[in-house]
Order: sequence, then C-alpha cells, then structure tokens
Amino acid sequence: MLTNDLASHAVEQTGADAPLYERVAVRISELIEHGTLRPGERVPSVRKYSEQQDVSIATVMQAYRLLEDRGIIEARPQSGYYVRTRRWELPPEPAMYRPKPKATNVRTSELVLNVVKAARIPGVVPLGATMPNPELFPIRELNRAMAAACRRAPHISHGYSPPAGGAILRHHLAQRAMEAGCTLSPDDLIVTCGATEALNLCLRAVAKPGDVIAIESPTFFGILQIIEALGMRVCEIPSYPREGVCLDELESRLKSCRIKACVFTLNFSNPLGSCMPDEKKKRLVEMLAEREIPLIEDDIYGNLAFAPTRPKSAKAFDTDGWVMSCDSFSKTLAPGFRVGWVAPGRFRQKVEFLKLVTTHSTASPTQLAMGEFLRNGGYDHHLRKLRRLYAAQSCRMIDAVGRHFPEGTRVSRPTGGMALWVELPAHLRALDVYERALAEKISIAPGPIFSAKQGFQNFLRLNFANPWSDKIENAILKLGKIMAGLSPRPVVVNGN
Amino acid sequence: MLTNDLASHAVEQTGADAPLYERVAVRISELIEHGTLRPGERVPSVRKYSEQQDVSIATVMQAYRLLEDRGIIEARPQSGYYVRTRRWELPPEPAMYRPKPKATNVRTSELVLNVVKAARIPGVVPLGATMPNPELFPIRELNRAMAAACRRAPHISHGYSPPAGGAILRHHLAQRAMEAGCTLSPDDLIVTCGATEALNLCLRAVAKPGDVIAIESPTFFGILQIIEALGMRVCEIPSYPREGVCLDELESRLKSCRIKACVFTLNFSNPLGSCMPDEKKKRLVEMLAEREIPLIEDDIYGNLAFAPTRPKSAKAFDTDGWVMSCDSFSKTLAPGFRVGWVAPGRFRQKVEFLKLVTTHSTASPTQLAMGEFLRNGGYDHHLRKLRRLYAAQSCRMIDAVGRHFPEGTRVSRPTGGMALWVELPAHLRALDVYERALAEKISIAPGPIFSAKQGFQNFLRLNFANPWSDKIENAILKLGKIMAGLSPRPVVVNGN
Repeated sequence: MLTNDLASHAVEQTGADAPLYERVAVRISELIEHGTLRPGERVPSVRKYSEQQDVSIATVMQAYRLLEDRGIIEARPQSGYYVRTRRWELPPEPAMYRPKPKATNVRTSELVLNVVKAARIPGVVPLGATMPNPELFPIRELNRAMAAACRRAPHISHGYSPPAGGAILRHHLAQRAMEAGCTLSPDDLIVTCGATEALNLCLRAVAKPGDVIAIESPTFFGILQIIEALGMRVCEIPSYPREGVCLDELESRLKSCRIKACVFTLNFSNPLGSCMPDEKKKRLVEMLAEREIPLIEDDIYGNLAFAPTRPKSAKAFDTDGWVMSCDSFSKTLAPGFRVGWVAPGRFRQKVEFLKLVTTHSTASPTQLAMGEFLRNGGYDHHLRKLRRLYAAQSCRMIDAVGRHFPEGTRVSRPTGGMALWVELPAHLRALDVYERALAEKISIAPGPIFSAKQGFQNFLRLNFANPWSDKIENAILKLGKIMAGLSPRPVVVNGN
Repeated sequence: MLTNDLASHAVEQTGADAPLYERVAVRISELIEHGTLRPGERVPSVRKYSEQQDVSIATVMQAYRLLEDRGIIEARPQSGYYVRTRRWELPPEPAMYRPKPKATNVRTSELVLNVVKAARIPGVVPLGATMPNPELFPIRELNRAMAAACRRAPHISHGYSPPAGGAILRHHLAQRAMEAGCTLSPDDLIVTCGATEALNLCLRAVAKPGDVIAIESPTFFGILQIIEALGMRVCEIPSYPREGVCLDELESRLKSCRIKACVFTLNFSNPLGSCMPDEKKKRLVEMLAEREIPLIEDDIYGNLAFAPTRPKSAKAFDTDGWVMSCDSFSKTLAPGFRVGWVAPGRFRQKVEFLKLVTTHSTASPTQLAMGEFLRNGGYDHHLRKLRRLYAAQSCRMIDAVGRHFPEGTRVSRPTGGMALWVELPAHLRALDVYERALAEKISIAPGPIFSAKQGFQNFLRLNFANPWSDKIENAILKLGKIMAGLSPRPVVVNGN
C-alpha cells in the first residue's frame, strides 16, 4: 500500500537535522505504517498531540499539513484529521528491464524533438518534459540579485567571464558541494552553460567518436542525443527501479565491452527516479577508478530529494579524480539562466580548454545573479519548499495513476526528482498513447525515447513538477481513458 | 605616407548617406591627399570654410575634430588647424605570406592560453587580446533593458528559451541583417552562446574529425583552437593584407586538397584587418556553392567598419544556402552576455539539433536584454561612436608604431575591426618580444599563434580597442625599446 511506502521513505530519509515538524510527520507516518493508526481512523487532535508529545501547536499543525499534502491523512470539516482510506490498490513498481549487452550506435528520432517541443505548445498539459514550473521560481529574488550584481560590478557583468567561471559563484558552489559530501575548492569547478554543456565537455574530454559509453537503462534521452551528436556509441546497463545501475551487470559489461566512460544519474535518475545508496556509490567509484574509467555523474536532481537532506554525490567518494560531477540550477532555480557547472577531477585542464573553445565562457550576468542569490541564503528556503511540494505532487500522481490507469500498470516510487516512470500493461504501445494524448492536448514522454535500442515500448514518463490541479488530475483521467480505448481493459487480478 | 592613405580610405568608404560632417572631413582629406594642402600648412578657418562651402559652423567643427582624431590635422592654440607634419615615414603594409599548401593537423600551444590570460592580469596594458574596453559598453542602457525585460516577462526570462532562440531577438537580428545586404526571416537564425558556439555548431554540422577545413593565413587563433578541439585539420590559404583570402590560391587548393568547408572572416579579418570587396565575395560564394562546399563566415567585425556604413556579408550573395554566417555582440556591446547567432542556410535543422544537445539554449535574460536594446534604437548611435573611436585609435597606433618600432617594420592599414598586424624586421622573434613585454606588463599577441604551422615568427598583433592614452603610447614606446634591445637597430633605407 502506498501509505506504508511513503511512511517508510520518510523514515529512511529524514535525518536528525530535519525540522521538528518533519520529524513529527515521520513519527505519525510510522504509527500508520505499523497499523497503530489504521485507514479511516482519526489521528490525535492537534491540541492533544501537542500536549502528549510536548511540541508546539504550530509544529503539529505543520506536520499534519505535510501529511495531508502527501496524501497520507485527510482533513474532515469540523471533525479533525483521519488516516486516508483508499478504495483502490496502488500499482506496484516496474521491474528491471534487461537490454542486450551489445554496444549500439545511437540514432535518436525526430520523436524526441517533438516530445520536447510539445511541452512548449500553449494550452498543452505538460507532463512530457521535466521542466520545472516557472510559477515556482524565486523570480523576484533572482531579478533583484541580477540587478544588484549588474549595478555593483558593471564591467564584470558585461565583460567576458574567465572561461572557468566567475570567482564569486565558484566560491559558493564549492561551499554548497559540502552538502553533497564533497570537499572541493573553487578552482576545482568550471562553470558551464547548464549541465548539458557540462556533459558535452566531459564526454569530449575523455572519449572520441566511436568510443563506447556506458549508460543506465532506461536513460534520459538528452544524454542519448549528446552521445549521438558526438558520434560515440552506448552500452546500456540494466538498472534497478530503486537503487539504479546494477553494479554486477556493469562489472560484467566492463569485461565484455571496451567501455571508455560511464554517464550515470545516481541521484533520482531520469526517468527511473532511482537513488543509489552510499555503499553502492562507493563500490561503483572504486570499481571504475581501478580500471581508470571516468565516471561522468549527472547530479542535477540531487537537490530535489524529498527528504530534508540530499543524498551524497559520487564525487564524495572520489579519491583519485576519476569522477566528473555535473550539476546545474536548471531543475531548481531558473533553467533560462543556463548556469551549470562541473567538477572534472583529473580532467580539469582539458575541460577548461574545451569550455574556452566551445562557448568561451558562461554569461556573466546570470553567473553573478546566481552567486548573489546563493550568498543571500534564499536558496535553502526555496529548496525546502520545492522538495515538500514535489514529494506531495509525486504522491498525488502515483495515486491518480493508480485510480485511472488500467490494471496491470506499474509505477515507480521516486524519492526525489520530478518524474514518474510508468509501465503499462504489455499490450499497450506508449507511442499510440503519446499520439492520442497529444491530440487531446496532453504531452507525455513515451518510453522508447529513453533507450538507444528503442525498448520500453509500453513505458512512459510523467512529469509531476507542476502544482497539482484539476487540470492535471483530468489529464491523468483522460490518459486512462485513452489507454482503455486502445484495447478493452483486461481483467487481471491485483496488479499482475 | 599615412596622411594620404587615410584620406583615400575615407574616400573609398564614405557613402553618400554619411553624415554631412563626415563628408566634409573626406573632402578636406582629399585636398591634403592631392597636395592642395601640404603638411604644415594651415587649413581654412572654421568660419571661412563654413562660408565658402555653405555648411554650418557646427558641421565644420565636427569635421575638423574628426580629422584631428584621425591624426590628419592638428590644432595649434590661438592659431587654428594645420595639416600635420611628420618627421618620420610611416611603415609600409605587410606582404602576403605563403604557407605550404599541405593540410595540417592543428596543435595550438599553451602559449595561446597564456596570451588570452595575460590580457586579464590587472595592471597589464592589454594590447594582446581583441577585447573591447568595458568603458565603451552602453552599460546603463543594457542594465535598464535587462531589468525591464525580466520584469515584464518573468516566465520567459527565467524559463528555457527555445533552442533556436527567443522570437523577439531573432526578429531584430533579421531586421538588422538587411544592413549587411541579407534577406533573412527570424526563422533563418539560431541564437548561440557567442560566435564561438556558432562556429562550433557550423563545423560540427558539416564536417567530421579528420576532415580538412580551409582557413585564412594568418587566421584567428580561436578558430584554430576550435578546429583542433574538433579533431579536424586545416589548409591555410594565403591572404592579401587588404582584400583577404586569395581566391586563385583557394581555387588551386580546392583541386589539390579535399576541403570539406571554409572558415573565413571576410570583413576585417583577424589579425590582418583585410576586407574582401563585394565582387570578390560574390565570386567566392559562387566558387564554393558550385562545389557544394559550405562557407562558414565569421562576421563579428562587420559592424566595426570605420566607414559610416558596414560592408556586405558573404551571406548577401548566397542563393543556395551554402553560406553559414556567424556573428555576435561580443565585439560591439557586451561580450559577457554571450549572445551570438548564426544564419546556417541549408544546414539549419542540423545546427538547431546540435545547439539543443550542446547547450540546450542561450541564456534567456541576456537574449531579452539584447532584443530590448535593439528595439530601443540605441545600437546605431553606439556603433557610430565606436566606429569613429576605433578609426581614430587605429591611426594613432599606426602612427606610434611608425615612430617607435625599428625601421623595417610594416603595419597593416585596417579599415575596420580592432587590431593591427605588424611585421617586424626579419631578425626579430615575436616570441622574444612577447616574453619581455609581458615582464614589463604589456600584453601583445605573437604571430606564431595565428597559424597551425607556427609561421609568422616576426609578426605580432596589437589591439587598438582601448581609448588612446599616455599609457598606451608609452607601451608602444617600450615595445620599441624592447625590440631595439633585442638586437642593434639595423639601418635600413625607407621601410624596406
């Protein structure tokens, strides 16, 4: 059941340094998980719980609202909060998919471009691309930061930035990297035009056209496109829905395939939503360093953990400089600013040269604005808000998929990021769903674009970054109807 | 003599649509050129000339100041304006250099990076890099444009731009392209992170690693670095100091070498300062289109013509889409904004795909700011100011080189851009001069970095974009002393 699932996530992920109300919420979730409080039962009143546990009324209120946002309890007017009852079973998680272990050339299709463009069509419900909703950006604060920076340092903001990036921004980035467990100096970082450029520079620094790059399966189509454009090939490594890349499979591919580098999203991978546990990350980093194979880490979702603290990045376990960690603000602050960065380890010099000759440097005003914004401390507050929102929206969408999609559907349980990975019953083709959905002004991302082999025919990805609304609820309902219309809904017992 | 040279430039370059005072200045230059007014003679008083020619006093004043800025006449207190006398001969122009016609791998050296970095060292007189002086940017207007755009369209300015660029900016860019003789729609353009990215995307769209690219000789070291990083090779085509690429040489190389594409700066090439006449541009475009070879045009200096109107770009003569024209605001407005663009002709789709997968899109706030700035019409005023300034500064620097550099020095006579190309007497090594100059806190760009074959051992490039000052005059003097110190100044008759 979902309720239990969520509770267990909360337990796993809430550290001792979480705010008090978050810890209270976890405690209540545990009571529900262990059956002390059952679906339909009333949870203690705010006043009572406050007295019993000796915490303030305001804290309990906050905790209850959080649980309500996450769909775990519900408020009934004039009566209090109750454990939510469901009349439906929630779908199970997708299984691991095993692509053939051969290296492949990459040829992404026109389809990918269409999926990306569909998310921009006015009036379309944007469940396709993993774009943050602009309503959630701290626009006023960023505008203020930009104006202040441009006024204060006009020659810096209008002149060329050094190719490696502005000193102020790199200082703040190095400081923040501590939260991902990394010890970095500003000089270890190179600012890029988003993580897209960072990934390009890393790949170009360590591999040549024709070389084989190991990627997760499924993997973000943008990574496939980058590799395609660079004329490299891929070897797809099966990945677990919860823990990501299967290290045993990777180890065997390292023996059979001449892998030149790996590109993995270890924290809340896209589309799986998996997050690799620390001990596995450590093993991965060691395994690759031993073989002198660079690990290019795409860490753009690391800060979107649903828990109050973010997971470590692979870079935290890097002792020999083989990890090249890429990140950006595009998923958390303002994608249009195109500010990303990379900690390229032992390949620093090569990456800096490539940065210089590819775009010379990243735009100065947006770098300064980000530096100023980080300095003023609004970022953590903003992240906390985003995390709570995304956690709640993810639950809502899992719930809606459970209600509206055909039986036999499976759905991921991400603990961060902004997308669900949905496995439809085998007889449904995601491309058919995609086309009919677009005709009804709903954009989704069909499974085949997440693999060089165009597998995942009955999978799709749903973006839950937009604040929950009737429009989104209805879009999920419509998608369910489209699926039902594609073939009679088969009677399958209990999510088989 | 310089005086004549400048006058003839003015005549060649001043169209009928030039402001009246500019035309007056040209007329006076002609009088000097033809010997009607000789060095040391008084030019007619402002009042007298105004009455004679029936133009306002203000116009004549402006014309005289322009001639003074250009070093053609000089004011003597309480006495009026006089044709400037020189006690020195001005150096002749450099000759055409003929590299061997074989394709070459490119390996630029650490030196290039050091030259670029030296220009950023505080306190160094920056004659090395062709960076515009930030004092000349319209900073207040750009800041205002950026703030207005971000406030007015917060979701657009903070969200992802379409990969091809924002609609408003592309509209203004297409309009402005008319001045370069081009008929383009906004959809023909793709906005990039500076011309650097534009050149990268074009090369990647039309050539693969190992392919041979024709370039000018000498050529901008940045182009060599881009080609090096892409693993391509070059074939260096000799270029005339005034008219640029020698088309006959190019034609013969097209036969002997499998050239995949050309990268040329036809308008005020860097470092030569040459500008290809229209009829030659037309012939070049036809010659390449016939052979289906793309011409990648780097047009970033086109707007820095010293004349009131800019020369046409090669794109103006493109009927079949083989010309890919790259440009940016980095030399005229604010390099730190990283806003460039490309009109990729028949390769539009490929370039747009590569843009998407390389940096996704260009930063939105800087695109919007440029769009807003172009809309408000401050750009033409700003360009006129820059052009006059650079024209004057170029004359000053040619003059100073003539006075302070050893006999036997030759120097280019650019009609636009921001650099002089200086040929030192054969016994002087530019690298020696570079090293000693840097020790004296003067940065210059030594000739060998402008060729894949490391030719141009006794050449150097001087940036004249910084407002003329005693500091610069002294730097030129010091450079001359350094050269004299490297070996005894040989007695050579008259600029041999």
